[in-house]
Amino acid sequence: MIKFDHQREERIRLPESVFCHDKTVEMLNEILVDLAEGATARVLFTRLSREKFRSLNPDLATRLDYHELSETALLGGPREERVPGKVAVITAGTSDLPVAWEAQRTLHYLGVASTLVVDVGVAGLWRLQERLPEINEHDVLIVVAGMDAALVSVVGGLTARPLIGVPTSTGYGVSSGGRTALESMLASCSPGVVVVNIDNGYGAACAAVRILQGIQPE
Amino acid sequence: MIKFDHQREERIRLPESVFCHDKTVEMLNEILVDLAEGATARVLFTRLSREKFRSLNPDLATRLDYHELSETALLGGPREERVPGKVAVITAGTSDLPVAWEAQRTLHYLGVASTLVVDVGVAGLWRLQERLPEINEHDVLIVVAGMDAALVSVVGGLTARPLIGVPTSTGYGVSSGGRTALESMLASCSPGVVVVNIDNGYGAACAAVRILQGIQPE
Amino acid sequence: MIKFDHQREERIRLPESVFCHDKTVEMLNEILVDLAEGATARVLFTRLSREKFRSLNPDLATRLDYHELSETALLGGPREERVPGKVAVITAGTSDLPVAWEAQRTLHYLGVASTLVVDVGVAGLWRLQERLPEINEHDVLIVVAGMDAALVSVVGGLTARPLIGVPTSTGYGVSSGGRTALESMLASCSPGVVVVNIDNGYGAACAAVRILQGIQPE
Amino acid sequence: MIKFDHQREERIRLPESVFCHDKTVEMLNEILVDLAEGATARVLFTRLSREKFRSLNPDLATRLDYHELSETALLGGPREERVPGKVAVITAGTSDLPVAWEAQRTLHYLGVASTLVVDVGVAGLWRLQERLPEINEHDVLIVVAGMDAALVSVVGGLTARPLIGVPTSTGYGVSSGGRTALESMLASCSPGVVVVNIDNGYGAACAAVRILQGIQPE
Amino acid sequence: MIKFDHQREERIRLPESVFCHDKTVEMLNEILVDLAEGATARVLFTRLSREKFRSLNPDLATRLDYHELSETALLGGPREERVPGKVAVITAGTSDLPVAWEAQRTLHYLGVASTLVVDVGVAGLWRLQERLPEINEHDVLIVVAGMDAALVSVVGGLTARPLIGVPTSTGYGVSSGGRTALESMLASCSPGVVVVNIDNGYGAACAAVRILQGIQPE
Amino acid sequence: MIKFDHQREERIRLPESVFCHDKTVEMLNEILVDLAEGATARVLFTRLSREKFRSLNPDLATRLDYHELSETALLGGPREERVPGKVAVITAGTSDLPVAWEAQRTLHYLGVASTLVVDVGVAGLWRLQERLPEINEHDVLIVVAGMDAALVSVVGGLTARPLIGVPTSTGYGVSSGGRTALESMLASCSPGVVVVNIDNGYGAACAAVRILQGIQPE
Amino acid sequence: MIKFDHQREERIRLPESVFCHDKTVEMLNEILVDLAEGATARVLFTRLSREKFRSLNPDLATRLDYHELSETALLGGPREERVPGKVAVITAGTSDLPVAWEAQRTLHYLGVASTLVVDVGVAGLWRLQERLPEINEHDVLIVVAGMDAALVSVVGGLTARPLIGVPTSTGYGVSSGGRTALESMLASCSPGVVVVNIDNGYGAACAAVRILQGIQPE
Amino acid sequence: MIKFDHQREERIRLPESVFCHDKTVEMLNEILVDLAEGATARVLFTRLSREKFRSLNPDLATRLDYHELSETALLGGPREERVPGKVAVITAGTSDLPVAWEAQRTLHYLGVASTLVVDVGVAGLWRLQERLPEINEHDVLIVVAGMDAALVSVVGGLTARPLIGVPTSTGYGVSSGGRTALESMLASCSPGVVVVNIDNGYGAACAAVRILQGIQPE
Repeated sequence: MIKFDHQREERIRLPESVFCHDKTVEMLNEILVDLAEGATARVLFTRLSREKFRSLNPDLATRLDYHELSETALLGGPREERVPGKVAVITAGTSDLPVAWEAQRTLHYLGVASTLVVDVGVAGLWRLQERLPEINEHDVLIVVAGMDAALVSVVGGLTARPLIGVPTSTGYGVSSGGRTALESMLASCSPGVVVVNIDNGYGAACAAVRILQGIQPE
Repeated sequence: MIKFDHQREERIRLPESVFCHDKTVEMLNEILVDLAEGATARVLFTRLSREKFRSLNPDLATRLDYHELSETALLGGPREERVPGKVAVITAGTSDLPVAWEAQRTLHYLGVASTLVVDVGVAGLWRLQERLPEINEHDVLIVVAGMDAALVSVVGGLTARPLIGVPTSTGYGVSSGGRTALESMLASCSPGVVVVNIDNGYGAACAAVRILQGIQPE
Repeated sequence: MIKFDHQREERIRLPESVFCHDKTVEMLNEILVDLAEGATARVLFTRLSREKFRSLNPDLATRLDYHELSETALLGGPREERVPGKVAVITAGTSDLPVAWEAQRTLHYLGVASTLVVDVGVAGLWRLQERLPEINEHDVLIVVAGMDAALVSVVGGLTARPLIGVPTSTGYGVSSGGRTALESMLASCSPGVVVVNIDNGYGAACAAVRILQGIQPE
Repeated sequence: MIKFDHQREERIRLPESVFCHDKTVEMLNEILVDLAEGATARVLFTRLSREKFRSLNPDLATRLDYHELSETALLGGPREERVPGKVAVITAGTSDLPVAWEAQRTLHYLGVASTLVVDVGVAGLWRLQERLPEINEHDVLIVVAGMDAALVSVVGGLTARPLIGVPTSTGYGVSSGGRTALESMLASCSPGVVVVNIDNGYGAACAAVRILQGIQPE
Repeated sequence: MIKFDHQREERIRLPESVFCHDKTVEMLNEILVDLAEGATARVLFTRLSREKFRSLNPDLATRLDYHELSETALLGGPREERVPGKVAVITAGTSDLPVAWEAQRTLHYLGVASTLVVDVGVAGLWRLQERLPEINEHDVLIVVAGMDAALVSVVGGLTARPLIGVPTSTGYGVSSGGRTALESMLASCSPGVVVVNIDNGYGAACAAVRILQGIQPE
Repeated sequence: MIKFDHQREERIRLPESVFCHDKTVEMLNEILVDLAEGATARVLFTRLSREKFRSLNPDLATRLDYHELSETALLGGPREERVPGKVAVITAGTSDLPVAWEAQRTLHYLGVASTLVVDVGVAGLWRLQERLPEINEHDVLIVVAGMDAALVSVVGGLTARPLIGVPTSTGYGVSSGGRTALESMLASCSPGVVVVNIDNGYGAACAAVRILQGIQPE
Repeated sequence: MIKFDHQREERIRLPESVFCHDKTVEMLNEILVDLAEGATARVLFTRLSREKFRSLNPDLATRLDYHELSETALLGGPREERVPGKVAVITAGTSDLPVAWEAQRTLHYLGVASTLVVDVGVAGLWRLQERLPEINEHDVLIVVAGMDAALVSVVGGLTARPLIGVPTSTGYGVSSGGRTALESMLASCSPGVVVVNIDNGYGAACAAVRILQGIQPE
Repeated sequence: MIKFDHQREERIRLPESVFCHDKTVEMLNEILVDLAEGATARVLFTRLSREKFRSLNPDLATRLDYHELSETALLGGPREERVPGKVAVITAGTSDLPVAWEAQRTLHYLGVASTLVVDVGVAGLWRLQERLPEINEHDVLIVVAGMDAALVSVVGGLTARPLIGVPTSTGYGVSSGGRTALESMLASCSPGVVVVNIDNGYGAACAAVRILQGIQPE
């Protein structure tokens, strides 16, 4: 019953992906069968929890390249076309890693090189300053942070690169759910910072690809 | 008493600007005197309401290029360096114009060419479809929309360009204040859309400049 | 102890139904016994989870026509009276299907014909445009969408039909719980769109029946 | 600069209207000039405050039929086509009248007959019960209520008619802004009630017209 | 380590009770031991879930009169002093029963007679009207309702009795958690209605006892 | 056009009053004319701001007993029937006085004696303890407090009297609007405390009258 | 009618102050008369707007030392007792000055020396780093910041001093009202940071005095 | 992959700790291995649930001093340096104990003596007054309270000591999650009270240490 948007890649240069969070195992199996029969050789699955992955029809699941901590799976491998440029995926803390990995896996799928820069939260500024020259060698920065998300403002004030903030739902109390991180990023005192939905590593990666693809001569 | 971040442009390639919303007329006069004496020849003032502008010291105010509807003022004109590329500033409705103009004035100040595409809200899709080829000739898209902000998803699904959404605080009831537009943009079903704070035309323009500046060979 | 509103159908032409979400298995068994003894031959059960259904007294449960994905059960089959007109139940994505099925099962129970139109979200507009003529052959439209719910505004701007929006609680971050979809629908820029509670496929179906029943000559 | 959706009436059988709330006087004057020159003879202006109306260019303003308490103005009078059927606009209290009048003025403009039923709030149920037979003679009911909006559930439980709830922003404390009324209506225990945005008398009227127009044989 | 407020009953004529929701089984066992040794013969336990009750030290648990659906337990039985007057506990729907039972069990413990009036929600007004004379024979009314909580306003408009509203966290979407019911009750259009916390049947019972005790000659 | 609920007093022993907050001066003048002609000799007006009062038709206004700080006006004086019992109206601070006076004026109108106890906020507990014996001589307590509203819990823990909390919208930051005070009262750790809407001195007075009237032999 | 807490200074070593925000001019005049007659020679008035100050009885107002931008007034000058230690009041931007000045004026009144460090927001980190040695010479730090309030985490990660965050209500969109700054500070990734209410410069100063007074040998 | 901030203790005199809430067991095992190899002999783990602790590599886990109810673990024992002064950790009720224990365990780890004062909630004021002299012998007070958190204001009005409020997420309805307690503390009517995030016993302890360390001669 599922209707794929097969024209998407042609139209917006981003292939369709399957967001598994609210889909039942039955729906996912049906999608995998459709894909097996259809023309779309490559698909990225996001928010595919370990439980769901393990409940899939084994014949279908075996064709997936699954990564548990990022809850992503690739069918058919990354696309062949390589996008020029490099993306740095920067995290404030270890707890932000699953979202950072979702971003990295999406970039990999979309043909973009990326570097992971971990644990440079502003409570210990020297860690960020130590890695700033390396960070500045990238064309687009994705900053993944929860709690007060202060890292976005600090990085935004130290570099001229396009900076995409990804708030994470880590923490408790006022941090819980990621609202504080989201609104803190939107209210950033550094100019020209942009933001995606809470925990949306996938979306940040797609935005980076729009930037890298959009500017180049075609 | 004010301390400017004179190193900002050198560091992040965006000059400092003065956000006037929470500053008293006395503070603004003091800033203008400081600027007259200082080295920073060019400054952009945002959220400078008509009332405040008219209350400024006339000798200082006369040096400003003031635009009432966008509540912006330029001191010393746009910077001389031209940034390559073009930005389209797209609005859903007429009520979104002040924010769109803030974006355009900021782009002008920063040396970027832009086009305004007005009144292409999705309730009458033909208006958007008519202008899509023209929109696609731009390198970065800024989409300004209030209420349900559906325009962001529709544009995001029709073009491969980097797309920065600016929610506006137009409307009433659940639209009032712009929260619904903001969250609708963050929840967009089109991949790779990024968002700035409500009514933040200035921030969207800076983000566009980060993109245009960041990718080019230096 | 339960007291049914047996006069409801006579009064408002909609029979009472049993909302199972906050009822214990004991309460549901008691209701089934009461119904077995009482005059109300036909009842619709909504939000009857698989776990609860399986815990019911088997003698009673066996009389129910249960549909797991919509969490609905019919006792005594659909009512005999047929309501004239047709309803289209339209979904933005696959994740919206359980709510769409609740709407369809309710319509079936109430004697109304309906068509399901799946996966026509605005990120790929061509899918909607392809099916618009078919959609326009229906008398009432129910649009089921989560996230930014932009589909409601787009459909509302393309058709003159009565349009009932059902926000869904799909997604994560700002989408989680369905508030963004709800408020986006309420803020729709298309005129004359109406909305029901989050995930309330049942209510949308009842509203469609009020429309179809209310206008016809009696 | 304004771009009208002139095809709207043809497409969705509802003409475009001008929402004045976030538009400056300059924008409104420009729109009036455009309309004077254009093909669209008839337009409804909503949320046109007394202050704005009085600031309009007098030559243009004089062509408007202005109603202060509903903040509406008609240019060119109601459309000629009459829509069959009758709408009852029901209010809980006197404070809900401005929104009720906006609904009535919109219905009048769109060619629909309506009756106003005032002050039938549930704190004094006898007033509602007294008028129930009269209410039931209408084809669509618009219920306008603030505070706890309990009237919607009570009316919804007493009649089979399509019922559109309009929450109002009357009251103070938890009532202030209309959120409580809105959510109370969405949570109504009466089946098949639908809701529009807070204070949106215009939207409720358009929804009523969709119902009345949509079902009739064409 | 627990420190009881043994002077409470003397001071405010309401004995202390033990709220078990956030206490571990270890804490509860310790409290039971303390009570066994101490002077306080009678205690009411609220929010004691079945799981926790079953995990208690069996020697201690056996001394409790436990009621699963209301999650209450009595140690030492109801107090001997009888409070004059009668309370009606009225519910909108079956889903509100657990909270109503908590109120009734608390009243029983405190020595007050009560009557349960179930399923008189306003969607079927006749059920309420049928029982109104009986309701009016009580001295204090406790109205337990979720969703839109319209029952409070309707009852408040039909009787002169003190009326305590208890919002419940039943339902889904905007009803979920009970906020809508709470705010709807606070915004009630019937004068002199008072409210307690969501699901707080215990508190409503205590308030009724304050009323019944407070007025009588001592 | 206004429809009074003249049967209210007979039904619930509380006369109707006129809430002026959302009514225009025109509506209020019309109501005053209706009252002058009608049978209802006595009416209480609440939320009648100084500006509105001064804009009323002078012939009508002169018949009102107006009290500016509580924004109340009496037409025809207090009712003749005296209600037995006494109410203490207790405030945490001076800023809570307007709400306390609204409660007192309503009690006066309804024929109930009351005492005002001012400035006994818990930051200086001795002030409360000094007046506790006097407070305990009253039959019902109304506690008016903003900010953290801690006074309600402290008073509730020191007395057995029925206690009605009225949160006020005083303060700034998290106190602004009165939400914190409201929720703090609802979450009170003292058993049997009940609450009304923010700033609702009128409602608290009516609740006190329900208590005083409801229990007495008739 | 006002009742001062004259014992406060003796009890908690902080004299009472008068919060003028919700008090009428009449109340303030009465307080000033009471103070003139009473034993309390010294009082601090906070949130005394220019409008209110100018409306006071001139004979009384003339005795006040008024500071417009901080909206504070001193009666009787600062207390004679000097508190040992020094406080740094640090602001992210110029817009935070009024709150910083309220803190400084309160410290002055309470006998504490303080230094103002302005415009060290994290978008230009060098400004903060330049002044860090000077900041570290103070015993307590008050950090005043709006928007994303990232300055609190950065300062908290660079110094061992007690740090009190004061969120400000500057900015617009998600910053408006100061919620984002408040929650960002509460979620700070730097350990041991504490927070007061939005715009509460007075409270931060009192907290600093508690620290400075509390530790010293008495 | 984890990068510790080994310079933290030297810089801010608080050693780094590991917040385990959002870390997987794999991440925690990796951290423990890193620590075993590294120079940081002592680390505090917070929010380490029983489930996670039991899933750790047993060889690593055995080196931890684990305390289940506070969900804390110490590696390498408390630091040797003793901080002068004493802290009182005061709780309103038994349900607040886990957070109080987290504060105490953190203080222990950081070398500070502390006393636990339990069950002194304001509903029974005598319990607090009985222990006030003992409380006043401490240098810093940490007050842990949920629900209305009134204890903070009462203690703040009775003592001159620095007072750090820790709101807890105990309770249900409006108390649920701890927002009401948090905002009530921020709105406290007692001057100079400061607040940390909900359930943040760790942060309150660190703040106490900043105070105790910050003032002493070095």
